[in-house]
Amino acid sequence: MRHALLPLALAFDAIMGIRENELVRKIGALAQQRSGGSNQVLLGAGDDAALFQPRLGYEIILTCDWFLEGTHFPRDKHPPDSVGWKCLARAVSDVAAMGGIPRCFLLSLALPPSRTNRWLEGFLVGLRRASRKFRCVLAGGDTTRSRQISINVTVAGEVKSGSGVLRSGARSGDIVYVSGRLGEAELGLRILKHNKRGARSKASRLKKHLYPEPRIALGRWLADKRVATSMMDLSDGLSSDLPRLCAASGVGARINAAKVPPPCIPSGGDLSTVNLLQLALHGGDDYELLFTVRPNQVRSLPRFFHGVQLTPIGVITSEKRIVVVKENGGEHRLESGGWDPFGFP
Amino acid sequence: MRHALLPLALAFDAIMGIRENELVRKIGALAQQRSGGSNQVLLGAGDDAALFQPRLGYEIILTCDWFLEGTHFPRDKHPPDSVGWKCLARAVSDVAAMGGIPRCFLLSLALPPSRTNRWLEGFLVGLRRASRKFRCVLAGGDTTRSRQISINVTVAGEVKSGSGVLRSGARSGDIVYVSGRLGEAELGLRILKHNKRGARSKASRLKKHLYPEPRIALGRWLADKRVATSMMDLSDGLSSDLPRLCAASGVGARINAAKVPPPCIPSGGDLSTVNLLQLALHGGDDYELLFTVRPNQVRSLPRFFHGVQLTPIGVITSEKRIVVVKENGGEHRLESGGWDPFGFP
Repeated sequence: MRHALLPLALAFDAIMGIRENELVRKIGALAQQRSGGSNQVLLGAGDDAALFQPRLGYEIILTCDWFLEGTHFPRDKHPPDSVGWKCLARAVSDVAAMGGIPRCFLLSLALPPSRTNRWLEGFLVGLRRASRKFRCVLAGGDTTRSRQISINVTVAGEVKSGSGVLRSGARSGDIVYVSGRLGEAELGLRILKHNKRGARSKASRLKKHLYPEPRIALGRWLADKRVATSMMDLSDGLSSDLPRLCAASGVGARINAAKVPPPCIPSGGDLSTVNLLQLALHGGDDYELLFTVRPNQVRSLPRFFHGVQLTPIGVITSEKRIVVVKENGGEHRLESGGWDPFGFP
Repeated sequence: MRHALLPLALAFDAIMGIRENELVRKIGALAQQRSGGSNQVLLGAGDDAALFQPRLGYEIILTCDWFLEGTHFPRDKHPPDSVGWKCLARAVSDVAAMGGIPRCFLLSLALPPSRTNRWLEGFLVGLRRASRKFRCVLAGGDTTRSRQISINVTVAGEVKSGSGVLRSGARSGDIVYVSGRLGEAELGLRILKHNKRGARSKASRLKKHLYPEPRIALGRWLADKRVATSMMDLSDGLSSDLPRLCAASGVGARINAAKVPPPCIPSGGDLSTVNLLQLALHGGDDYELLFTVRPNQVRSLPRFFHGVQLTPIGVITSEKRIVVVKENGGEHRLESGGWDPFGFP
């Protein structure tokens, strides 16, 4: 019967010379894992394209994300399983930011032949872990050869019709929230860049940078309960992303510097000179959620959602500028200073 | 109202330095074009991701395709509008090969800064033409910087539930058909490679290579009428693609060499030494449809569909090998010799 969950023989038009068959077999094994609940209707066609049956009353969410060596991750600094995990996590985070549920993904992978053995195996270990964790199964893709590792991930998700949370719904007076702590991924990146042993030391301080967790359950809860009036994920840093949300909504914001949750670091040590507020305001790659809530809905928000802190950091204003209010009462415009992918050596 | 066709403010996380805003504006203009009929329910979210409402009783088709400078198209040989047209045409062809209707696409574009002006404008002219022609609208994407032009296109389409035509449905005795003429794109590529003036001479012989037309209407008709038992598009050449269809169906085929429709070229001239059968068997990039039909359904097939010739070229066999029968009665196994993306200078 066509509508059963078939083992996926992928539609990879792989052109990798003698390694083609082996490459497709390696990646195909990932597609054949069974997935839980919401993906049972997925049809893997092993064909020109992937087919799936949308659920009645749901809209389809589509997003894609580049993940390029030298632009989005530095050469030889990231363990391959982190690259596999993170390329999917980044795209899934966009679905979470709409309040959606990820369903399946397409993997476009362009590799130098030197990366088709050990590196690829490590990459697939991370990708498989992420795929299981996010309940988002591989449905197809395209592989080819290139000089540098180039990855593009498309995620298809779904959200109840009319429940998707856009960036454009914030209104004056709404309270601005963030999930988790901000700047931890940037801190991890800095440690990684100055660590000659690369990422082999599996320090928890690197985890947020190497294996970010998109806030799927939180995004879905905020959408289902209609608590969030607007939402996006923090990929480039609060100072870059908040202006995007405000521009889409035609509003501004006043952010209370003392409320922005900074990275949690042990006291003393070589990190004591780091300006935590600057990290929290400008650090990218956190994949936390930024969302707004009507004042009369605030009491329906827990302080923690499945262990993730939800913090009110300011208020939406009708005046279209974004201001940071410091502890001494002084204030200044928030200048965009988010993550710069060209900063890698 | 959220369900109207909104102007799309794209979810481009563009990181192009000072050119970011201009780049997004240029591409965004493409998304704001209105599209016809079947796309009216599309929701452009201008957000973390694109949202669209699937039609009741339809399955979603998803496909993605690399289009890399130096791998899939040669540097400085292809006019930029051809790159724009062809990157979408290739991915749309995968939807056509399932019998589906394209609906929207995501554009992932990584460019060197030197290509963000004139080249990009030409690229967008071709992409816009293709988008209108195929009724497939831009719904989002991702842009970034890279050393070479890297393009990845995801197309979402739809097909009536249960009507998608897979590669796996061919049975012994089915007649093997192709649309159009085979090898014309390869011929165009050869002319282009030996033409010092590049593609400026808009010869009709280059058209099939530079501006291929996916067979959307034909694929849909074959699916709707349930005429095709299996189908795929010819992207890498008959000798590479027919084995894939046969493998997916667990069958073999006997192809009649005299029936394979070769490129149509003027007699005489510098092309008279070209082996047309070899071009037709092994040339890639035609984006014609390869499909199989039950013998008792053959009479319901027209010889031409909207001007495109439909040619029976052989028969499916239970013996799992692919044989070419020559005019003199001799036969040989069909060896894969399709388009080689690494053959570019």
